[in-house]
Amino acid sequence: MRLSRYFLPILKETPKEAEIVSHRLMLRAGMIRQESAGIYAWLPLGYRVLRKIEQIVREEQNRAGAVELLMPTIQSADLWRESGRYDAYGREMLRITDRHERDMLFGPTNEEMITEIFRAYVRSYKDLPLNLYHIQWKFRDEVRPRFGIMRGREFLMKDAYSFDVDKESARHAYNRMFVAYLRTFHRMGLKAIPMRAETGPIGGDMSHEFIILASTGESEVFCHKDILDLPIPGADTDFQADLSPIVSAWTAPYAATDEMHDKAAFDAIAEDRRVTARGIEVGHIFYFGTKYSEPMKANVTLSDGTETPVHMGSYGVGVSRLLGALIEAHHDDDGIIWPTSVAPFHVGLVNLKTGDAATDAACEDLYAQLENAGVEVLYDDEDTRAGAKFATMDLIGLPWQLVVGPRGLKDGIVELKNRSSGERVSLSPQEAVNRLVADIKG
Amino acid sequence: MRLSRYFLPILKETPKEAEIVSHRLMLRAGMIRQESAGIYAWLPLGYRVLRKIEQIVREEQNRAGAVELLMPTIQSADLWRESGRYDAYGREMLRITDRHERDMLFGPTNEEMITEIFRAYVRSYKDLPLNLYHIQWKFRDEVRPRFGIMRGREFLMKDAYSFDVDKESARHAYNRMFVAYLRTFHRMGLKAIPMRAETGPIGGDMSHEFIILASTGESEVFCHKDILDLPIPGADTDFQADLSPIVSAWTAPYAATDEMHDKAAFDAIAEDRRVTARGIEVGHIFYFGTKYSEPMKANVTLSDGTETPVHMGSYGVGVSRLLGALIEAHHDDDGIIWPTSVAPFHVGLVNLKTGDAATDAACEDLYAQLENAGVEVLYDDEDTRAGAKFATMDLIGLPWQLVVGPRGLKDGIVELKNRSSGERVSLSPQEAVNRLVADIKG
Repeated sequence: MRLSRYFLPILKETPKEAEIVSHRLMLRAGMIRQESAGIYAWLPLGYRVLRKIEQIVREEQNRAGAVELLMPTIQSADLWRESGRYDAYGREMLRITDRHERDMLFGPTNEEMITEIFRAYVRSYKDLPLNLYHIQWKFRDEVRPRFGIMRGREFLMKDAYSFDVDKESARHAYNRMFVAYLRTFHRMGLKAIPMRAETGPIGGDMSHEFIILASTGESEVFCHKDILDLPIPGADTDFQADLSPIVSAWTAPYAATDEMHDKAAFDAIAEDRRVTARGIEVGHIFYFGTKYSEPMKANVTLSDGTETPVHMGSYGVGVSRLLGALIEAHHDDDGIIWPTSVAPFHVGLVNLKTGDAATDAACEDLYAQLENAGVEVLYDDEDTRAGAKFATMDLIGLPWQLVVGPRGLKDGIVELKNRSSGERVSLSPQEAVNRLVADIKG
Repeated sequence: MRLSRYFLPILKETPKEAEIVSHRLMLRAGMIRQESAGIYAWLPLGYRVLRKIEQIVREEQNRAGAVELLMPTIQSADLWRESGRYDAYGREMLRITDRHERDMLFGPTNEEMITEIFRAYVRSYKDLPLNLYHIQWKFRDEVRPRFGIMRGREFLMKDAYSFDVDKESARHAYNRMFVAYLRTFHRMGLKAIPMRAETGPIGGDMSHEFIILASTGESEVFCHKDILDLPIPGADTDFQADLSPIVSAWTAPYAATDEMHDKAAFDAIAEDRRVTARGIEVGHIFYFGTKYSEPMKANVTLSDGTETPVHMGSYGVGVSRLLGALIEAHHDDDGIIWPTSVAPFHVGLVNLKTGDAATDAACEDLYAQLENAGVEVLYDDEDTRAGAKFATMDLIGLPWQLVVGPRGLKDGIVELKNRSSGERVSLSPQEAVNRLVADIKG
């Protein structure tokens, strides 16, 4: 992408309304624009990252055997009356009346609707297990939206819903999502820790929040150091197999948010193995049994001919929230530092003298070579000061900067900077291409 | 994808409520489910097609130089008061009041919001031309939604907005979208014809509807036969160049919907060159000048220091509607016939005797080989009657069916059926793989 044809509205000043670093950096880097309180437009740079995050979430859901569909945003109130939640749900639910005076709502979540879809088609235990997910824009009318897209009103979420014949099978479904989440966040360059969460009236041990560590995280978390070094399940994980050994390994060491913190248990850990850190919740997985299937009569027939309400779980990932969480976890004073897997572009190509024939030609050649190799390049071909170009590149945080100027070209060299380490090397244009292709596509 | 782990709720009966063939087939093939009047859940098979259509639209927008972002669905009423449309827009606009009693709405379109984004950041003619687009779920509260997703209330649309310094530049922007649309619909296997449309008070010749031909189309259209044979601009089209020769070639022959039909002009065409057909509108491009930029004060500074309101156009594609239009254009009595580029899977692999070791092994091998080659396979590994399997495959309309049974395997052969031509050939499993890979990936 040529910057001259892109839309990247960088802000020079730090916006006053932004209380946290991810919000500030997203506004400054031209990634989002607030359109109403807690409602944002995703500008091109931000939207590219959002789509990459979404794609990683999708790939790992698919790998774990979940099947993608998409439910509508506008739901009928009748469905929520069936489950009993229409009156129970608070003012966060945006209620709507259509032109025929029917009560509708902008869905804050989809348990009712997916249960309705399930019961419409599935009759037999033979069709289970089933896990259906979607990645959907939702609305919750937060009384005081803040922290940018971290606590906005309109947000993108992945929610999966599992259907099983009994609690034991539901545990397998739960484990599959547990492992999928470990892989999902790891692929984004995040250190995510599953922490036991409140299960409500159902009780048991099948509710975990996934918390990523970030120095500027919203809440305090506590864990055993062992958990930080556990291996992440590989891409070759067999999701049909018993995954409980993996789940056991990840749930054995102490890990808790401040809400669930057990000081005595934590203090029993050797002092040099205790970790206190800041965290951000990015996922939540939850078994809720027959809470919706019973009132909504979502039953399946068993092999003996009897009927049983289906056992369900739900599995959320805050897709748009992850963008903020990623920045909280990966930034420095100069701006964002994107992990390669979610970076909006892989390389920023900086032309230090637009209009100089040799420099332009070298840049065009590098641009074409990299793009042909599948490396995503943002080519700064604009006629602006070098200092401003560098500041923008640091701010938007692409993993690599490739700097091309007339002086270096005379000696046959360009400069390659790694945004994360700050390391700079001078090398020939061809070496630079080889190195970038090896790093990005290798 | 293994059918046993997929969610494909085929309906045996033809749903009574469906008036048109695409609606009937989408319901029967388990692609959509109605959740409220005109509001549909996209079941897995339908959603896969929707995403393929969306991706083709995206690629061609990008190729033409448009830049993707995403605006929110919920908009502030204030923005619409600025343009004067809040009161003017009818009851199709879903109006909402949030918990703080602010007037909001579920956006039926985005001219106001994109103008707001533009004016917030763009100051100079040097930043033009600019074309920003998004692919977004919209809501229009149709009084009588019908024809399934063809005229639903919640629907997915691509809308692009161009910004130019004057009308002459705006014409170039318009031409770029015109050409992008020719490519977009062609890639989906559709014959789309641009037809001059009403321009309203602005007048001129910069408004076209793109109508695809389908025997069961919603309206009657008239055109010169020449237009059906015009070449589609190639992938190597230079969108920076003057595209008016292409646009002229496509707008010279007579082409009109019944609304704009000029019987005298049509009758002047030699009789054997007159085409009367049924059509479905799938896109609309439109230059509207300063209609929004003037009231909303979206101005740019010219090189002489004076300010001028920016000239705008908008360019819509009915992304979800296209799915219905595709089926109207491509079906027979047995079901859908997907063009390869938008097919939910490329191949249906039919195991005629699940449980038979040799047949299972042969199917597993074919499945693995095809998937590894990047061919998308729906593998029917269920233990059901052959007749039902064939009927389902014909109904869901994958381009190829690969049929594997114990009898054929004894002679070392499998059967490959082309859904569109109906042609069947017997060949070795390896030949079948080679042929499919060549057809799909070649």
